[in-house]
Amino acid sequence: MTSKISILLEQLGNTWHQTIPVSEFMQICPESYLQHVFSVSAPLAPNINLHHTMFAGSIYTLMTLTGWGAVWLNQQLTGVKGDIVLANAHIRYLAPITTSPTAKVTWPGDDLSALSAGRRVKVNLSVELYCEGKRCAEFEGTYVSLPSL
Amino acid sequence: MTSKISILLEQLGNTWHQTIPVSEFMQICPESYLQHVFSVSAPLAPNINLHHTMFAGSIYTLMTLTGWGAVWLNQQLTGVKGDIVLANAHIRYLAPITTSPTAKVTWPGDDLSALSAGRRVKVNLSVELYCEGKRCAEFEGTYVSLPSL
Repeated sequence: MTSKISILLEQLGNTWHQTIPVSEFMQICPESYLQHVFSVSAPLAPNINLHHTMFAGSIYTLMTLTGWGAVWLNQQLTGVKGDIVLANAHIRYLAPITTSPTAKVTWPGDDLSALSAGRRVKVNLSVELYCEGKRCAEFEGTYVSLPSL
Repeated sequence: MTSKISILLEQLGNTWHQTIPVSEFMQICPESYLQHVFSVSAPLAPNINLHHTMFAGSIYTLMTLTGWGAVWLNQQLTGVKGDIVLANAHIRYLAPITTSPTAKVTWPGDDLSALSAGRRVKVNLSVELYCEGKRCAEFEGTYVSLPSL
């Protein structure tokens, strides 16, 4: 199981970098998926702003992809297919980020099997961003997965 | 006045590209500021996703910087200084974006003079994203400008 997860995390990182140029520029990297918690990191250098902290747009993008990745991983693990899109999101910035942060999301256990029956699935996810143990941003997003044709 | 605006738009674009690497990668460009409406564009190519439409993170970043730029422009035009940060934001994605979009925000006329007296200013902005005349995303953000030291 662990090696299956490792392969999926590598596949996810490659998918992001090969199909979303911004994610490659930002060096967004899936870290782990342990006990339903998916973690994703990015270095500060390509994501800096004019205050020399992490750019608000980069923070949002990191958290958005973390949620997207959690849906993708769980689709792979349950053997269903779907095109995942973000419908809406809310973000609150709590503190400036001065070193490489980690975004974390706990998979809520949503049943994705409707995709196999050709129906869409909606998943609400809460993503949190940590920097040196401090919570620096919170994100809530609604993702929709559409049955693949 | 027109040439002053042109100079400020160029200065704003340079500031973004020189201090926020992601904005340069995305090729985000201030277009115009006419009758209190600030317009900003970005090409599709660097901002594509795996569905071959504009990436949700890029859409958000474009809209975030449009709001930020509107505060910056109005600080410049009224001769006050402040460090502008985004406190929170909400975004709704309405339709996929298939060609270069334009983000637009109408400056609500907030009084920024408190900055001169050393007090922070809070501005709520609504940004809309258009692609071939169609509204494809809506963004609401709360920006805070802190008196520069």
